[in-house]
Amino acid sequence: MRIGILGGGQLGRMLALDGYPLGFQFRFLDPTLDAPVNQLAEHLVGAYDDIDMLHRFADGVDVVTYEFENVPVETVRILSQNVPVYPPPQALEAAQDRLVEKRFLQDLAIPTPPFVAVNTRTDLEAAIVQIGLPAVLKTRRLGYDGKGQYLIRQMADVERAWVALGITPLILEGFVSFTREVSILAVRGRDGTIICYPLVENEHRQGILWRSLAPAPHLSPELQAQAVDYATRVLDKLKYVGVLAIEFFQVVDAQQQFMLLANEMAPRVHNSGHWTIEGAETSQFENHVRAIAGLPLGDVAVRGCAAMLNLIGTLPDLSSMLAIPGTHVHLYGKAPRHGRKLGHVTLRADEPQTLTTMRQHVETLIDG
Amino acid sequence: MRIGILGGGQLGRMLALDGYPLGFQFRFLDPTLDAPVNQLAEHLVGAYDDIDMLHRFADGVDVVTYEFENVPVETVRILSQNVPVYPPPQALEAAQDRLVEKRFLQDLAIPTPPFVAVNTRTDLEAAIVQIGLPAVLKTRRLGYDGKGQYLIRQMADVERAWVALGITPLILEGFVSFTREVSILAVRGRDGTIICYPLVENEHRQGILWRSLAPAPHLSPELQAQAVDYATRVLDKLKYVGVLAIEFFQVVDAQQQFMLLANEMAPRVHNSGHWTIEGAETSQFENHVRAIAGLPLGDVAVRGCAAMLNLIGTLPDLSSMLAIPGTHVHLYGKAPRHGRKLGHVTLRADEPQTLTTMRQHVETLIDG
Repeated sequence: MRIGILGGGQLGRMLALDGYPLGFQFRFLDPTLDAPVNQLAEHLVGAYDDIDMLHRFADGVDVVTYEFENVPVETVRILSQNVPVYPPPQALEAAQDRLVEKRFLQDLAIPTPPFVAVNTRTDLEAAIVQIGLPAVLKTRRLGYDGKGQYLIRQMADVERAWVALGITPLILEGFVSFTREVSILAVRGRDGTIICYPLVENEHRQGILWRSLAPAPHLSPELQAQAVDYATRVLDKLKYVGVLAIEFFQVVDAQQQFMLLANEMAPRVHNSGHWTIEGAETSQFENHVRAIAGLPLGDVAVRGCAAMLNLIGTLPDLSSMLAIPGTHVHLYGKAPRHGRKLGHVTLRADEPQTLTTMRQHVETLIDG
Repeated sequence: MRIGILGGGQLGRMLALDGYPLGFQFRFLDPTLDAPVNQLAEHLVGAYDDIDMLHRFADGVDVVTYEFENVPVETVRILSQNVPVYPPPQALEAAQDRLVEKRFLQDLAIPTPPFVAVNTRTDLEAAIVQIGLPAVLKTRRLGYDGKGQYLIRQMADVERAWVALGITPLILEGFVSFTREVSILAVRGRDGTIICYPLVENEHRQGILWRSLAPAPHLSPELQAQAVDYATRVLDKLKYVGVLAIEFFQVVDAQQQFMLLANEMAPRVHNSGHWTIEGAETSQFENHVRAIAGLPLGDVAVRGCAAMLNLIGTLPDLSSMLAIPGTHVHLYGKAPRHGRKLGHVTLRADEPQTLTTMRQHVETLIDG
């Protein structure tokens, strides 16, 4: 079986590395010549809206998937006339627009922060009255890693926020005073089977994921059940196939209980699931490949506990990192550049205390 | 860093799959167009004794290694004039000839079965008198997976054995009544650091490795220490860099204690170490790459227990295998053919009892 993947970044690279052992071949479409998959699979260099290229890409491919959610929906529609595409186009549509996404979650009775659509400066003023401050003004489309967002703390920030973002359709979201950010990685097979990894705790720096702890420390069965319930609603509604990530804010409700507010979802393998390569019995990458290929899903049981640290902008000394037992380094073959995800490190330990010691050591190397 | 690998079979494939995450690139030289590495790395199709091809292969490569021990020593000598080659040529020389290998082990005071060189029919008769029967007549060079061997049970077998093998230099080895076959995977870094995985129990079928259990059941610290001692002598003597496998017969000595007799060694990653991909903190493949690249070696700690089953000749149904939790399938992208290693399955469990149940299930599928 040959699998076609739209996008040839690190997620595609790790899909191929974990998919080859199942005997699959891979073909990527990515406009960047030196994309991270370039050496390790067939790579067509072309644009996602080049119809001729899409036909070449689809020719001889048994199933198509994508590794980023800003693939044009039209591209997926064209491809799906000739070959199955998973996750389905409706998942892309729901994830590409923050307003559509929030309404979709709302329709499934999944709690979210308050939100209002904003198209004009007048809308913005009205939205602030409705939601209150602080609030976050976001572009509806093409935001990632904290880009396309502006925190409005007080009325004096409104003008700057509008100047920064006001040319595109926007959404104003209530600023959530959260205990922490968590995410769930859920997988749905072609036969409708659903499995979920445990919730992971995520910390961001300058809007970019910096660290994930898996399972999320002090994770209660109730919170996990809540996340699984929400993920299941989304997966079933979309007749989803593959890995889906949902990011939540963990907040304290009126009864002083923890609850989850859905922030956003990604219809693909996700940075907060990289720990599964070493930390779970089956990685998110292998499970995504199994799902879209119609194979049984793999065991999501956790091996001890894990921390995932992103390597952003510059690379620390490789030898120093590898000298720490239980440290697993993943480099993506990308040239260093400010704010760019160049790789990640996963630390695995049987005991949380050991993990904390290792983590502090590696974090010093990374920040060094 | 770009790593050049002589041989593009499944071992090369798994070296690349576990080496990419460290940020390395790979170039293979293999005469077979559809070698298992063909899609996933740069692959030069050429002969190992083609001098021009060797120059192309070495150009821009930082270090060279090999994935099978019958690489011509001359090839390695030529390459090593321009680029470091690990393991060192003397390891290849010691491993390519059973007589040289046995003498090398003998010089290091590592026990082996009794052996005598055989070049003529008269030598053979004399060797049988010296060693007794049963005994195994083997070609000194190019034997693998039980090929080039003939078991002589009684004098009536001598003629057939001689007809089958008598045209090349031979060795007669005493037939060992062993308790079981075990092997050790040992790694030596460029800085001389040595680490060893636990001994593995191996079962063969028709001379081909069929199953490995890791760690070897009922493994005593004394037996492991004996294997580590022998491996250390070999590695240090050869100033070895990379993964080395030594296969032993476990026998009962005069004091009714278990002891090890070295059978053969392989200067490369080894089929009996495939379980390390899921069963150990760091795989043999990653550790080989780390070693030859001059990086710190990775933790060899075992995760629970593992069984590795080879898929030989035909492939069982993929879905049925993957439906068993904890089962990890590795296919090599090779066309089915009688006696050919097409892939392997690793089963991992926290408890030996669970492993046994899983193993029986998967073995039924394979033998189905």
